[in-house]
Amino acid sequence: MDINAYMQDLGISARAASRVLARADSAIKNSALMAIAERLDGARSAVLVANSLDMENGRAKGLDAALLDRLELNQERIGSMIEGLQQVSLLQDPVGEMTDLGYRPSGIQLGKMRVPLGVIGIIYESRPNVTIDAASLCLKSGNASILRGGSEAIFSNRAIAVCISEGLKDAGLPETAVQVVNTADRDAVGELITMSEYVDVIVPRGGKGLIARISADARVPVIKHLDGNCHVYIDDHADLIKAVAIADNSKTHRYGVCNAMESLLIAESVAQIILPQLAKVYTEKCVEMRGCEKSRAIVGSMVAASEQDWSEEYLAPVLSIKIVTGIDEAIEHINQYSSQHTESIVTEDFNRGRRFVAEVDSSSVMINASTRFADGFEYGLGAEIGISTDKIHARGPVGLDGLTSQKWVVFGDGQIRE
Amino acid sequence: MDINAYMQDLGISARAASRVLARADSAIKNSALMAIAERLDGARSAVLVANSLDMENGRAKGLDAALLDRLELNQERIGSMIEGLQQVSLLQDPVGEMTDLGYRPSGIQLGKMRVPLGVIGIIYESRPNVTIDAASLCLKSGNASILRGGSEAIFSNRAIAVCISEGLKDAGLPETAVQVVNTADRDAVGELITMSEYVDVIVPRGGKGLIARISADARVPVIKHLDGNCHVYIDDHADLIKAVAIADNSKTHRYGVCNAMESLLIAESVAQIILPQLAKVYTEKCVEMRGCEKSRAIVGSMVAASEQDWSEEYLAPVLSIKIVTGIDEAIEHINQYSSQHTESIVTEDFNRGRRFVAEVDSSSVMINASTRFADGFEYGLGAEIGISTDKIHARGPVGLDGLTSQKWVVFGDGQIRE
Repeated sequence: MDINAYMQDLGISARAASRVLARADSAIKNSALMAIAERLDGARSAVLVANSLDMENGRAKGLDAALLDRLELNQERIGSMIEGLQQVSLLQDPVGEMTDLGYRPSGIQLGKMRVPLGVIGIIYESRPNVTIDAASLCLKSGNASILRGGSEAIFSNRAIAVCISEGLKDAGLPETAVQVVNTADRDAVGELITMSEYVDVIVPRGGKGLIARISADARVPVIKHLDGNCHVYIDDHADLIKAVAIADNSKTHRYGVCNAMESLLIAESVAQIILPQLAKVYTEKCVEMRGCEKSRAIVGSMVAASEQDWSEEYLAPVLSIKIVTGIDEAIEHINQYSSQHTESIVTEDFNRGRRFVAEVDSSSVMINASTRFADGFEYGLGAEIGISTDKIHARGPVGLDGLTSQKWVVFGDGQIRE
Repeated sequence: MDINAYMQDLGISARAASRVLARADSAIKNSALMAIAERLDGARSAVLVANSLDMENGRAKGLDAALLDRLELNQERIGSMIEGLQQVSLLQDPVGEMTDLGYRPSGIQLGKMRVPLGVIGIIYESRPNVTIDAASLCLKSGNASILRGGSEAIFSNRAIAVCISEGLKDAGLPETAVQVVNTADRDAVGELITMSEYVDVIVPRGGKGLIARISADARVPVIKHLDGNCHVYIDDHADLIKAVAIADNSKTHRYGVCNAMESLLIAESVAQIILPQLAKVYTEKCVEMRGCEKSRAIVGSMVAASEQDWSEEYLAPVLSIKIVTGIDEAIEHINQYSSQHTESIVTEDFNRGRRFVAEVDSSSVMINASTRFADGFEYGLGAEIGISTDKIHARGPVGLDGLTSQKWVVFGDGQIRE
């Protein structure tokens, strides 16, 4: 099999399908989503058989328990995938939305119209549910998609791909509107991220190493999420009850997520009061604390934080803690070490809050709220394709709008330029 | 001189300055713009002396008349640069604008805030006025900039750079907020477009070859303008008086601009009436017409268009003309050959207009208006850094907003996730 030729073929088909999709109305796109859900429901056993093959191979290859868990499908998980399709069908269609229509002195009426990006390439790990997730968001936003899941999920993805293409056909849309790369060959990724003629944007999902590699090699714009080294800063004007609740929730609500707090900053003048309270909470929940010298002077049981700790995304019950002189040092520390994902200040002071929001350069900046709110569902996007830590195009949770662009529209009645 | 080390130094300084600029309020940024204008006004003779050196070298190198014209400065052109600075100071500051603030079911208040991109690298030809133009737009939008003009303008740019850094100092902003690359070595560009740690976006301005090369080699997102193969489609439901005016104006108002019409499509059933009228106009204005067979059957004096003509951006008094069966063929032709810059339909029919706007995938799509309106000033952006033919981030004329991004802001009073 000539991988490059195969990928180019997918690209050509996707480009052609993208033209049809771009003008497909909401009703057709929704009926395709529902048809895919029905096909998936009818193919539960075929999908489970394919998945058990992947699981067998995965076990033989010695995949660890976490990877196997992500790879595994069961009736309940297929049910969630079907539900996901239904939910996306209920979301507002962003395509065609016109905004900012107004008259210019020349007499032309100028506005913006939301349009699909075209062809989206999604590269993800061996999680078959992402195949449906990604397909449905691209479809609803009027984009053709080329999906490249991890090679360990190849049989599951093939079985799901059949449901998708049948569902598209049922709705009268081109089957090539969603294409699942049907090879485990890794060269397919290299081709996908460089064929800029056929692919408008790449969304990589997965580990930091994978995403960094893809970004470095891509010749197509990438919407990426690198990591989430999120901070909470407890200001000296903080309400201490809110502070404890937010610092607790941001760290311990879930550990393995990108919007969990990884580093806690506390203003010096309140550290004596608040740090022991928080240490008690964290100790009860078995969170390992790694502190600066000043923190360790207050809570002796803390491990010493190394320089490396300030940049670390633990994704685990570990937290770095630093006592700062005040908001200036806090902002400076954050802008130096943060991954620009999500940061929150706890303060009752209007000006401190205002400064933090203006000066912290992260995709979500919060006042008196848990970092855990930085999430497509919590933000009302309905679903998210990822959380961007880029500055170009889309920052933070990326929903349907992030998979679209805006073109200019001009309405006239014969205007010409003098 | 170690070019890589030199560029890295510029990058480090720009990143540091970008933090200061991001929190600089409008008054300070405006006073810097006015101070630069004053410094430039006071340095007219120094700038003109430097420019005459560039002109001398340019003539010795045998630069053609058009390039020399772009390179040349005089009192009037310096006056325009000063006026440009004043105009940018009057534009609305986009930074800090908050939109879409609303409450979520969790009780958090969610919105978006417009923020600078950070550090912008601009690469342009030997046109010293662009140095001021680019510097002022980046400064006003709160971005640090690294400007790399064509090597033939090096003395002019150095002289202008002095005015810029003095003006920045006068206003109390870091002199490194705007840095002009002070070497004619071409390796500087290679370094600038790959140092993603220090540069957030590259805006190349210049010929198609240069931009294509930069896009291919960049490791930093690029906002680019490739070319403007713009179309006007005269529908069979067109008002013929409007059609002639728009087809005339779109082609002949100015020839060397990216928003000039390069290809005219006419519905078959009105071609017999309209093409002879238009041919008369174009012949009088010495526009060379290159037509399809059907067009040549109506106007015999036309040259035959080759396949290549449909993709051509002439930037000259040349026009390709094709008779199409109707709107379907017109849209198909445009989506195949257009550079996705600007297309206009002339029609009195509601549904035809609606379809054209929905189905033509270009950065500006118009009904009954000249393509020449696709311009930052006509669109009310005040100024433009370029016209993007990309789909990601910014499409069409890019003004101050295009040099910014939006982050999410969350205001709460202690909300945590359950």
